[in-house]
Amino acid sequence: MTATVAELIARHRPTLDAALGAIRSRGYYSRFPENAKAYPAEAKDRAQAAFEARHGATWSLGQTGADGTTVGAEVSPYGFELGFSYEHVDPDVLIPAMQAAIPAWRDAGAEARAAVCIEILCRLNARSFEVAYTAMHTTGQAFMMAFQAAGPNAQDRGLEAVAYGYSALNAHPDKVLWEKPTGRGEPTRLAKKWIAAPRGVALVVGCNTFPTWNGYPGLFASLVTGNAALVKPHPCAVAPLALTVETAREVLGEAGFSPDLVALAPEAKDEGLAKTLALRPEVKIIDFTGSNEFGDWLEANARQAQVYTEKAGINTVIVDSFRDDEYPAALGHLAFSLSLYTAQMCTTPQNILVPRGGIQVGDERKSPEEFAADLAGAVEKLLGDDARATAILGAVVNPFILDRLDRAAGVGKTVLASRAVTHPDFPDAAIRTPLIAAVDAVDADIYTHEWFGPISFIITTDSTQDSIDIYRESVKAHGALTAAVYADSEAVIRAVEEATWEAGANLSINLVGPIYVNQSAAFSDYHGTGANPAANATYADHAFVAGRFRFIQSRRPA
Amino acid sequence: MTATVAELIARHRPTLDAALGAIRSRGYYSRFPENAKAYPAEAKDRAQAAFEARHGATWSLGQTGADGTTVGAEVSPYGFELGFSYEHVDPDVLIPAMQAAIPAWRDAGAEARAAVCIEILCRLNARSFEVAYTAMHTTGQAFMMAFQAAGPNAQDRGLEAVAYGYSALNAHPDKVLWEKPTGRGEPTRLAKKWIAAPRGVALVVGCNTFPTWNGYPGLFASLVTGNAALVKPHPCAVAPLALTVETAREVLGEAGFSPDLVALAPEAKDEGLAKTLALRPEVKIIDFTGSNEFGDWLEANARQAQVYTEKAGINTVIVDSFRDDEYPAALGHLAFSLSLYTAQMCTTPQNILVPRGGIQVGDERKSPEEFAADLAGAVEKLLGDDARATAILGAVVNPFILDRLDRAAGVGKTVLASRAVTHPDFPDAAIRTPLIAAVDAVDADIYTHEWFGPISFIITTDSTQDSIDIYRESVKAHGALTAAVYADSEAVIRAVEEATWEAGANLSINLVGPIYVNQSAAFSDYHGTGANPAANATYADHAFVAGRFRFIQSRRPA
Repeated sequence: MTATVAELIARHRPTLDAALGAIRSRGYYSRFPENAKAYPAEAKDRAQAAFEARHGATWSLGQTGADGTTVGAEVSPYGFELGFSYEHVDPDVLIPAMQAAIPAWRDAGAEARAAVCIEILCRLNARSFEVAYTAMHTTGQAFMMAFQAAGPNAQDRGLEAVAYGYSALNAHPDKVLWEKPTGRGEPTRLAKKWIAAPRGVALVVGCNTFPTWNGYPGLFASLVTGNAALVKPHPCAVAPLALTVETAREVLGEAGFSPDLVALAPEAKDEGLAKTLALRPEVKIIDFTGSNEFGDWLEANARQAQVYTEKAGINTVIVDSFRDDEYPAALGHLAFSLSLYTAQMCTTPQNILVPRGGIQVGDERKSPEEFAADLAGAVEKLLGDDARATAILGAVVNPFILDRLDRAAGVGKTVLASRAVTHPDFPDAAIRTPLIAAVDAVDADIYTHEWFGPISFIITTDSTQDSIDIYRESVKAHGALTAAVYADSEAVIRAVEEATWEAGANLSINLVGPIYVNQSAAFSDYHGTGANPAANATYADHAFVAGRFRFIQSRRPA
Repeated sequence: MTATVAELIARHRPTLDAALGAIRSRGYYSRFPENAKAYPAEAKDRAQAAFEARHGATWSLGQTGADGTTVGAEVSPYGFELGFSYEHVDPDVLIPAMQAAIPAWRDAGAEARAAVCIEILCRLNARSFEVAYTAMHTTGQAFMMAFQAAGPNAQDRGLEAVAYGYSALNAHPDKVLWEKPTGRGEPTRLAKKWIAAPRGVALVVGCNTFPTWNGYPGLFASLVTGNAALVKPHPCAVAPLALTVETAREVLGEAGFSPDLVALAPEAKDEGLAKTLALRPEVKIIDFTGSNEFGDWLEANARQAQVYTEKAGINTVIVDSFRDDEYPAALGHLAFSLSLYTAQMCTTPQNILVPRGGIQVGDERKSPEEFAADLAGAVEKLLGDDARATAILGAVVNPFILDRLDRAAGVGKTVLASRAVTHPDFPDAAIRTPLIAAVDAVDADIYTHEWFGPISFIITTDSTQDSIDIYRESVKAHGALTAAVYADSEAVIRAVEEATWEAGANLSINLVGPIYVNQSAAFSDYHGTGANPAANATYADHAFVAGRFRFIQSRRPA
């Protein structure tokens, strides 16, 4: 497998060029197929065996600064202890080694770094089934979702970040002969050159639910721009990122770079390592996905670093009217959006705004109560079969979700109660169907914060215009990653779009097909906008990469 | 003069394209000639008359929110009161009007906004002599420097920001048909569109010494990306920005936009308006040039805004060796750098590092004392004639500089004392030549902060390597906008460059010609790097513009 940097460049230049084309068009592009059938059939069994073989073993990465202790207490949401342990590292030893590795990585240049990054992504792609098992049993996603989201979809997001970084690094040539006319003979000539200087050590703070999908954009954006990356995984979802770091270190070492350019910092129980690392002076970039509380803390306190955050919001659906023939499909579609991965996605709708006077469905008028009953029925139909339900829902990722469900049962009028589902293979898994509660628009204290998990509200408003106003103002104040509207009226759609430009959420209109409001596709859909409190960044655009390095100039007479 | 937006686009598209080409190459480009002879001869006299006619008058801009009071107490550094007054505005009235103007400006699109911005710059260019008088008598620059720096050079910097903004806005098309293959017949099709949503109101906090040159990059970057811009001038340098805002409002109105998209907020004495405005929730972008103290305060406190700062640093020169034939020219060159505009530039060298063992000049060895005497002699020679001296020095901008000079006279060993110079036309102007003091490298408490004004230190170090180490570490800790090295050794130059990539200053090597370390040319030289404490941004690059708007998406089945 060993290849020189030149060979890696030759191998991956076509991928880089295709990705550069895709970020220019934002049309459909995917480098890593999400269809499991595109992968060798035997790989799945091998991956399962590898996953099981890790039980009781220490996952050694050969990192500088391993301090001789091990940590790790991951428990599968499917009801068993993973039994993985990881070498704990001493940041005072590891971080200087990471810093020392940077100049050679910087001097290798953008094309070499992009090729190494793409090689890492390709190796991760070949391990997608392994990734899937580690993701399933840390996030609680159903197997196929874990495969797609943590594997190829995350890899595509990583490649997208590589393309943006490479594009930004190549904003202009690295040298130029500057000739200023003097008007009297010879021009003044200066030879100018620039280096794209990386910031330093980049910290990636992983989340529990999408450790790779939310982790790769920042990781690869920082790497391709010449930084070293220190990955601090969520203590409940270490394995997918350990596998990632292991692969990256392997590729870096083979290509002649220090493996310490990418490192894993798993934490001991109650160590609070993210806070400690986030405030270190060497840490110049932080990518974080998770709670508002910690994201806001990072933004306020890690002042020595560029901080990119993806936090929580109140994703909103405005329901106005349907074409008669689309109503059943739209209900089924919405039901799926509310159910997928037990709504443990930062993109799942929460607030469904319905006017008090009802909605138009073809020639018929439906009251908010009728719409609520129809939606509840669609969820019940979707999840009526336990085996099918588990494949959509996956498992509840942590007990906080169960507590929240209990609390939600006492809020407003329960339209659809949550029920427990038993998994055929994992009887100890906590699996729950969504709860839907009806509330009134005046109950803003209920619905203007995030109820992370399978909890949504049908909110009765005074009118569609009132819905739009509530949408705009609540999202401006509290953030949202996604929004949706169902309206058989271009005037309503235009009004919702206008509110969206202010609210700064990514809007889906009248979706009924196989793409859901929860889903954002690499290279085309932005994830987050950076324009409301839910996130200060997006996956991915130039703003996401431009601050990760700086052009420094040297000039002299020519 | 009135032109439709379509006419402005047609008129200015060639300029926009040339500017877009220039930011791709970072080679020589200038749209606005800095040679005064390129402008109508009679314009200068007209401008002087206009300047004098403003004495005792109120400069009315017709702004929404004028509260009926006037402010203004500018005093020329050349020794007389300007007698200009300005309408004070009520932010509670003005800012909502600015916000209300944004959607139409946003919807006009990038090309229209770029054309309007370029029209503003061209109108400012036509008023360059007017700009020059206002700049001379607020900043203290000599007339020709005020003309060039506040006029065409600043206009070029503004155009550069327009080009970067336009480029970022056009990172991809505003709509695409996204077709995802399904493998079984028809692909999934979504029609996707994006809007580049501006942040909101951008605050430009002007400085005393370069109100337009340092103000235009942020002003035009914010405008072209769809924001409204509120200019809060330094109370001692209102006029150049009043003229700027006046021109912008005129063009905006003629093109059919609200003039309130650009507004001036002059402050009453001790009003502390910058702080008040900086914390308003509508203010989403802040561009600031000035003290570390207020810049750091903005970064820490104006958390609702993107904050771009240019602050202070310790610009450093490493002296190692000279080619024999270049020594006199280099001394004269350095002397000019230390004298231009009384060293009241954020790019003027302060710390000159010379090894204890001396420097090589051709075949000769010169001790630090000899080098200091040679440099002092070069300054004396340059400024020996009072008329010539005033054309280089301009006037002292404020009494703090004089206090600092007094203090500097007691620091280290004075190698060259400052002397007062009398201006032939302005006998009340405070004009001072540079002071040079010799100190030892151990006296870091003296030279590791900025002594803004005509004060520099010749610092004796243990060796050139020691000089490089001091350079790297002091600039990393305290910042610098520029650095220079004189060395007749490629090995030394390489070592200084390597330190520079870490220190993050823009480096000039062996300069002897008509371009000085203090000078940075729009479209080629970056001003600031954002890589050390002297600035968190640069004029201009993609990082400077990318955060001033956000892409927001809308998608629907196609």
